[in-house]
Amino acid sequence: MTIEDHGVVPKTVDEALDQLVLANRILANEGILDALGHVSVRNPNNWETFYLSRSLSPELVTREDMMEIDLEGRVLTETDKRPYSERFIHAAILKGRPDVNAVFHGHPHEVIPFSSTGVPIRPMAHFASLFFEGVPLYDDYDVSSGLLISTLKEAQRLGRVLGNARAVLLRDHGCCVVGENIPAMVMGAIYLRDNAKIQLQALQLGQPKYLSYEEGREAATRMVSPGAIGIERAWEYWVRRAKKSMSI
Amino acid sequence: MTIEDHGVVPKTVDEALDQLVLANRILANEGILDALGHVSVRNPNNWETFYLSRSLSPELVTREDMMEIDLEGRVLTETDKRPYSERFIHAAILKGRPDVNAVFHGHPHEVIPFSSTGVPIRPMAHFASLFFEGVPLYDDYDVSSGLLISTLKEAQRLGRVLGNARAVLLRDHGCCVVGENIPAMVMGAIYLRDNAKIQLQALQLGQPKYLSYEEGREAATRMVSPGAIGIERAWEYWVRRAKKSMSI
Amino acid sequence: MTIEDHGVVPKTVDEALDQLVLANRILANEGILDALGHVSVRNPNNWETFYLSRSLSPELVTREDMMEIDLEGRVLTETDKRPYSERFIHAAILKGRPDVNAVFHGHPHEVIPFSSTGVPIRPMAHFASLFFEGVPLYDDYDVSSGLLISTLKEAQRLGRVLGNARAVLLRDHGCCVVGENIPAMVMGAIYLRDNAKIQLQALQLGQPKYLSYEEGREAATRMVSPGAIGIERAWEYWVRRAKKSMSI
Amino acid sequence: MTIEDHGVVPKTVDEALDQLVLANRILANEGILDALGHVSVRNPNNWETFYLSRSLSPELVTREDMMEIDLEGRVLTETDKRPYSERFIHAAILKGRPDVNAVFHGHPHEVIPFSSTGVPIRPMAHFASLFFEGVPLYDDYDVSSGLLISTLKEAQRLGRVLGNARAVLLRDHGCCVVGENIPAMVMGAIYLRDNAKIQLQALQLGQPKYLSYEEGREAATRMVSPGAIGIERAWEYWVRRAKKSMSI
Repeated sequence: MTIEDHGVVPKTVDEALDQLVLANRILANEGILDALGHVSVRNPNNWETFYLSRSLSPELVTREDMMEIDLEGRVLTETDKRPYSERFIHAAILKGRPDVNAVFHGHPHEVIPFSSTGVPIRPMAHFASLFFEGVPLYDDYDVSSGLLISTLKEAQRLGRVLGNARAVLLRDHGCCVVGENIPAMVMGAIYLRDNAKIQLQALQLGQPKYLSYEEGREAATRMVSPGAIGIERAWEYWVRRAKKSMSI
Repeated sequence: MTIEDHGVVPKTVDEALDQLVLANRILANEGILDALGHVSVRNPNNWETFYLSRSLSPELVTREDMMEIDLEGRVLTETDKRPYSERFIHAAILKGRPDVNAVFHGHPHEVIPFSSTGVPIRPMAHFASLFFEGVPLYDDYDVSSGLLISTLKEAQRLGRVLGNARAVLLRDHGCCVVGENIPAMVMGAIYLRDNAKIQLQALQLGQPKYLSYEEGREAATRMVSPGAIGIERAWEYWVRRAKKSMSI
Repeated sequence: MTIEDHGVVPKTVDEALDQLVLANRILANEGILDALGHVSVRNPNNWETFYLSRSLSPELVTREDMMEIDLEGRVLTETDKRPYSERFIHAAILKGRPDVNAVFHGHPHEVIPFSSTGVPIRPMAHFASLFFEGVPLYDDYDVSSGLLISTLKEAQRLGRVLGNARAVLLRDHGCCVVGENIPAMVMGAIYLRDNAKIQLQALQLGQPKYLSYEEGREAATRMVSPGAIGIERAWEYWVRRAKKSMSI
Repeated sequence: MTIEDHGVVPKTVDEALDQLVLANRILANEGILDALGHVSVRNPNNWETFYLSRSLSPELVTREDMMEIDLEGRVLTETDKRPYSERFIHAAILKGRPDVNAVFHGHPHEVIPFSSTGVPIRPMAHFASLFFEGVPLYDDYDVSSGLLISTLKEAQRLGRVLGNARAVLLRDHGCCVVGENIPAMVMGAIYLRDNAKIQLQALQLGQPKYLSYEEGREAATRMVSPGAIGIERAWEYWVRRAKKSMSI
């Protein structure tokens, strides 16, 4: 992955924060995030920091809730607000993946059964082709942390399992999805959930014929590569729906 | 199928475009289309062209977004907007099926498991009797196109698999549904989705007794034939719900 | 069953029609009826006629749409509007069941798999205990009618299968639910759907322990008998929700 | 469990009643309660009484509907309104569990299949870790009561099955969930439902690896212990969503 312009890549901190608020609202509005979960964006002016809301449900996040955090998970913004205890996930992934500029962590219900049974998620549709290289599973918890990734050390371990993939499952917990920019991360989070839902149903019918590696690679290119028509259309749609919902 | 008047067949381009906007909004509102997918209507004044939105999510489509396209997939409307890359589906089907005046292409989640496992969709209810002659499966992709039907050649191949049916599944992708007019196409798209959902559940309970061929043929006649009461009632319902949703 | 007062039994035609409009809106609002399906109430002043909307989706029905119909299915109201083609269902059931004053016919998706596979619906919860005597299955169609019950003769056949039960399934079509009054009929329609949804899930987990006959009989008495607290509370709830939805 | 301050523990009756109205609305808004079911809070000034709405659906409950009831189930508030017939559940549990200050009783559809088949609910995610000590099953009904717990004697029997757990299933009926305060009870009710939904899906995929006892204990501490960040965030979210829904 490389940072590419889908007409939506922020050039300033202001633009990045506006987009991050939208990502929070979109993922709540589309049913991917509920009370818990969080998303981050790398600082466009400083590779070594990123933005993340203070501890708050994504549906409620505004510009004023954003904190700047460094790649060790230290909060740089002066504030008396509490950060998410799992901010280390974002720090470790953004440090280990220079190609990634946006990170999602959440608990979509449809994804958890795969994390718990170890059945691999495999793409069932062109729109989920982003995951053609597979979705690894993290199950190397520090038991004393109660399945939360609340230390840099455990977050680094998770990052190593993610490797170069677009997503990683956390056993009995949820998943992380990364993107070269916010729209690609949002698309990945939504379509990982959709694919899990479809795959569960298909496995009840019989043996699915998944996308082959070649099909997945070709389709993924068309979904998120520079100028790809799919992501522009989808991003506009998600933004419009989220704004409509926010205004009611 | 023949073009019949359900009190809703457009006689002018204006009426056709109004109805096409409604079809977009209805299919979004009823959960059949999300960010992706598209619907077309043949030009009532010119058999050899049709209308389709520019590349835009169906929930957002307005009159101003419509393009006129010919049966080779060439955009005739002068515009700097981008067309859907899969417009060739509409071109090839409308060329090969003189009895068809409206085409749906989308990715309802409930339909994809059937496309992927090859389990045939068979009517489970009188309202899904439209599909009594079966729903063929397309799985002859040009791998280099990433499961998108973005050339006329591949669209023609898809059209040959559709044959004289009302719908065709695309493996790991979605489906197309055709109609003699827009309400019949909308009804087909909604009830194909509903039938897939019901059939999946029935197969978990035991062996369904599907509609017999004769039952399906008789029931289908009552659903969409000229003056059929079902389609008039349903179309009014879908229109009213979509308009209510659009006004919020 | 006998006609009992839940604080909601109409004494005048006016009250009966107001309640019938509400029943239409409630069943649409709670997801039991969509474009198709219909509900009726017996004329409180004349045992031999009943009220039913003209052919219209339940979500759209108003007082002005009501027709008076006799127990042979003849429309008595002078009007140029079309009646539902399946009005004979209501005529035959109301004629054969003096204890019944309200009839539902619809196609809840969750119920159809049971109608198609022949797996019997059995009560899984006290609120669905109304069906403790079983739900018979109608599968004796006149093929030439396309699975619609559009003649008095076939409706009488359906009525005989219903017998003294509270509901009957129609194979690959839907169900009918009857009540001593409108609230009891609405409750039956909603809880038959809920029970079907729960029973399908339970059968995927293992062997459910259904309500015994005695448990069902006792629980049913508490749900709909005169002065029963459950139906008063539920009816008020459904009415308030439907009115809220109608006002948006 | 001990009574702890999540920034949300009421100190006065006024605060307790405000919070109880919110709990009713939240549980309706999140789809945990429908027409039936109820929630209570212990009187912060008098250990031996509690508050519960009069017989009314939770979505409709206001401050004016609250009754004070003692631990034998006697209504102390002077009123001509009817209480819930199952108020004894709250009385018996609050008497037997000094550590509990809030009780939920309802019938989430996803939970009932477990109650009916006897498949144990086990935590599938950190947010459902509250149930790491297991969820016992009550199936010792007094048949003559129609599966309702409408006597103090039967409610005490139910309380003994609950024991020291956070929840108990009622066969073919629903469940009870308890909390040291209202937010913890609400969280338990929502996450028990979510876990049941996820567990059903996982069991269709294969053999889930549930949270171990140690994982569950550690995670539960982080969810509801004093100052835990999860419950503060979630409670704010549920309140804001319920208030938004109430204002439409």
